[in-house]
Amino acid sequence: MARPLEYGEQVLLWEAGRGRTFSFVLREGEVFHSHKGSIPHGEIAGQPEGTRVFSNTGVEFVVFRPRLPERMMKVRRRTQIVYPKDAGWLALALDLAPGMRVVEMGTGSGAFTILLAQLVGPGGRVYTFDRREDFLENALENISRAGLSDRVEAGVLEAGEPFPVEGEVDAVFLDLPEPWLAVSPAYAVLAPGRPLAGIVPTAEQLKGFVASLEREGFVAVECVEILERRVLVREREGVRPFERMVGFTGYIVSARKALPAGKEEGCGG
Amino acid sequence: MARPLEYGEQVLLWEAGRGRTFSFVLREGEVFHSHKGSIPHGEIAGQPEGTRVFSNTGVEFVVFRPRLPERMMKVRRRTQIVYPKDAGWLALALDLAPGMRVVEMGTGSGAFTILLAQLVGPGGRVYTFDRREDFLENALENISRAGLSDRVEAGVLEAGEPFPVEGEVDAVFLDLPEPWLAVSPAYAVLAPGRPLAGIVPTAEQLKGFVASLEREGFVAVECVEILERRVLVREREGVRPFERMVGFTGYIVSARKALPAGKEEGCGG
Amino acid sequence: MARPLEYGEQVLLWEAGRGRTFSFVLREGEVFHSHKGSIPHGEIAGQPEGTRVFSNTGVEFVVFRPRLPERMMKVRRRTQIVYPKDAGWLALALDLAPGMRVVEMGTGSGAFTILLAQLVGPGGRVYTFDRREDFLENALENISRAGLSDRVEAGVLEAGEPFPVEGEVDAVFLDLPEPWLAVSPAYAVLAPGRPLAGIVPTAEQLKGFVASLEREGFVAVECVEILERRVLVREREGVRPFERMVGFTGYIVSARKALPAGKEEGCGG
Amino acid sequence: MARPLEYGEQVLLWEAGRGRTFSFVLREGEVFHSHKGSIPHGEIAGQPEGTRVFSNTGVEFVVFRPRLPERMMKVRRRTQIVYPKDAGWLALALDLAPGMRVVEMGTGSGAFTILLAQLVGPGGRVYTFDRREDFLENALENISRAGLSDRVEAGVLEAGEPFPVEGEVDAVFLDLPEPWLAVSPAYAVLAPGRPLAGIVPTAEQLKGFVASLEREGFVAVECVEILERRVLVREREGVRPFERMVGFTGYIVSARKALPAGKEEGCGG
Repeated sequence: MARPLEYGEQVLLWEAGRGRTFSFVLREGEVFHSHKGSIPHGEIAGQPEGTRVFSNTGVEFVVFRPRLPERMMKVRRRTQIVYPKDAGWLALALDLAPGMRVVEMGTGSGAFTILLAQLVGPGGRVYTFDRREDFLENALENISRAGLSDRVEAGVLEAGEPFPVEGEVDAVFLDLPEPWLAVSPAYAVLAPGRPLAGIVPTAEQLKGFVASLEREGFVAVECVEILERRVLVREREGVRPFERMVGFTGYIVSARKALPAGKEEGCGG
Repeated sequence: MARPLEYGEQVLLWEAGRGRTFSFVLREGEVFHSHKGSIPHGEIAGQPEGTRVFSNTGVEFVVFRPRLPERMMKVRRRTQIVYPKDAGWLALALDLAPGMRVVEMGTGSGAFTILLAQLVGPGGRVYTFDRREDFLENALENISRAGLSDRVEAGVLEAGEPFPVEGEVDAVFLDLPEPWLAVSPAYAVLAPGRPLAGIVPTAEQLKGFVASLEREGFVAVECVEILERRVLVREREGVRPFERMVGFTGYIVSARKALPAGKEEGCGG
Repeated sequence: MARPLEYGEQVLLWEAGRGRTFSFVLREGEVFHSHKGSIPHGEIAGQPEGTRVFSNTGVEFVVFRPRLPERMMKVRRRTQIVYPKDAGWLALALDLAPGMRVVEMGTGSGAFTILLAQLVGPGGRVYTFDRREDFLENALENISRAGLSDRVEAGVLEAGEPFPVEGEVDAVFLDLPEPWLAVSPAYAVLAPGRPLAGIVPTAEQLKGFVASLEREGFVAVECVEILERRVLVREREGVRPFERMVGFTGYIVSARKALPAGKEEGCGG
Repeated sequence: MARPLEYGEQVLLWEAGRGRTFSFVLREGEVFHSHKGSIPHGEIAGQPEGTRVFSNTGVEFVVFRPRLPERMMKVRRRTQIVYPKDAGWLALALDLAPGMRVVEMGTGSGAFTILLAQLVGPGGRVYTFDRREDFLENALENISRAGLSDRVEAGVLEAGEPFPVEGEVDAVFLDLPEPWLAVSPAYAVLAPGRPLAGIVPTAEQLKGFVASLEREGFVAVECVEILERRVLVREREGVRPFERMVGFTGYIVSARKALPAGKEEGCGG
């Protein structure tokens, strides 16, 4: 019943034992090469996920479709990306659900756009903006490779300009060096009570971001950082955390749109 | 356009300035009481999210629907729950998307069931099992309060019994004291290549869990722990992490189902 | 051979099994009271460290002299203190050794003064200053209780005033809300090349502190934060980190005094 | 008054701006070479710490004596070493003070021996043992380079053998793959009430270590891990933690020797 891997799809090769992974798009007639030997794409196409394949030098691999974290990490990067450890927290903070319409400002390489697009599903809509057209082009290729183009609309926009989106949206995500520029446009486009979130790298940006949120009518502001530590579990070596870890990626922020006091908008809502 | 809050819905009251929150179901004729004064439910019903309301003692609150993290944290607890910081990572590891069919073993209080149900959406399906009928009853009430009952099926099951689910599922989540008991049944029900994840509190359980995964045909095993640190951002006090934090909730694990070597299942897949 | 506990000494009672500790000064004729029963001081005086004693209700305790971490944590607090986790890092950064002469600005409750005094030993000297005479009085009592008064000199001083110390010192520690005020006086009193260290609670103070260090001729500036996580090891429950931890105490900083370029002070040094 | 750097001493060159450091022993007639140019040792000898020197290509360095953390990190390594972040905690846990006599089992490369030797001072004594003579030889060279040989005695010893030390010692440190083998010998040599500490890399070793401590008469067992995160403070980039960090080095343990119940050893103490 499992849908076989097809030409044109992105696949993930997992090297048995070592845990290294390789990602590429299946193309008829092409061959995957690495220092562990080569595998014709034709040996992968038509197989289900989870199939074991062997390189010409006898190294074992297992073929998969990339999951969401791998599709995010394997984008062609033109910018810093939002890491899965932060993206998971953000997905909850933005209260994502199928069918939602969401705005992203700061498309970057499109890693977080991929998360948004997967979670709102084909019935949802992701409006993503960046000031750099070349970033957008690269991001749209990444989104296409992830098979999610049908639900994503992208456009060039400067931080601070109003979002060219009709009606209210369910969530807004900001990934900008000066997120405070986009807080007022975000307020304008968000449905009342719905969440905004963002990520910034420094304490100074965090302070400026939070100050603008509080000034522009957002409440319930939360700021966190997420540390992910991998743990090594081996029969012989025993259980212990890895020696190296990512110590920091960014401060992440969420908040919710409150209506102005005394405003009667709600009554006819 | 925003849908007003209605009787029967769960609401979240956010106390202005202090950041404390209160959660309850709106009932006609009832009154919310706290040491900050009282608010008749009738002043909330019919308002949009984001509306500011005042208690009879003049304290300001903002009314919201709970987002996913709050719906998880505010369940009536009969057990330890999966925390949002871990749940975000797990949502990505399980590669959740609208329309998926997923199995959960160890319903507990239903917090993670709520996440699964929100993210697979009304077109998806969550099959959740627990050995304790009383836990299931409480969890189902929590799921109902979150408005997600339409996509959840629950049943009593001992760890180790086969999952009574027709066809293959897209993901399996295990939250059990002895997760190794459920690894073989999980393998049986999972589509090839698809992810399994779980959470355990101790190094010993982690070791036993990982050993069973590797024995039963899972690969790409990852073990991590997630630390969330809240950051205080105040104009006067400045930016600094909170003094207290949750230091540990559990080790989280993900893996993918590989097919046995040489098995030709894939060809007709 | 072990020196018995004497009247006038500070002792630490460790409650068997539970791990709670109680600290007090042994006084002839007095009785220790807790909800676990009472123990006459006379049953402790004359015993060596490590002796097991029993309260009148049969609860077992073990008597100890407090180690350095406990002497620091058990000071009577009038201020925030430097925690042992940070103090250990600082002791190394300050390159402490027996016989050294060191300056501390911001005595507070004297917890870190106790560390300095223990590690420079009876042949060393700690010059500690605070702007608040009442803080100094409390700190000197804490230092006396720790039996370290012989090597400590204290004085009232405003941040920014020159340190009233003759000759050069081996290390300077600053624990001040505005540490930049004391950087220039610290430079004046430090031997060339020797270390300065400090602790501050916010990102803004950290930035101001570092800027002043670089401006005033310090180099090799390092900024870190230390997280300590307790781990629970029980035969039945297994090995896992504690659920709660201290998430943050302060940013700690160290630097070294460089001489101005071209200065020939060194030649006759 | 500052003592100038002399031939035969270990020096630390700190590269201005970049923060990289180089360590070597000053030798008459030798020249320091790096890709940043060369500096004759003769330009350093006779200068005080903190002097700025320039390579033949104009790169600025500042010369220092290594502090304790650098002397530890710059040992010639034949083994994993105890890192300064853990060593600071251990120094406090072991309650080190000038004049103490301490035992170390598992000399390794001597990094922690250097800490012990600096803090007990010339009036103290460090007895350090390792089963590998080649490790001891390397460690003794490292200790000699740090100028601390006068207070260190080393010997070959298998874990489990009694410590060949006369009288009681004030502290014991264990850095062994099987620390439980040395717990009983440690108990025998420790003064009553005094601390033992150790470090182990895995959860399994931690469990075995703690079990043996509790069995052999130690109490007040504490297990922790220490995370050190460096923080970047730059005028332009702002304040934020470094992206990479050391995620784990080991679990550290401390405990204190309790006397057997009912033993009257204390009375004549």
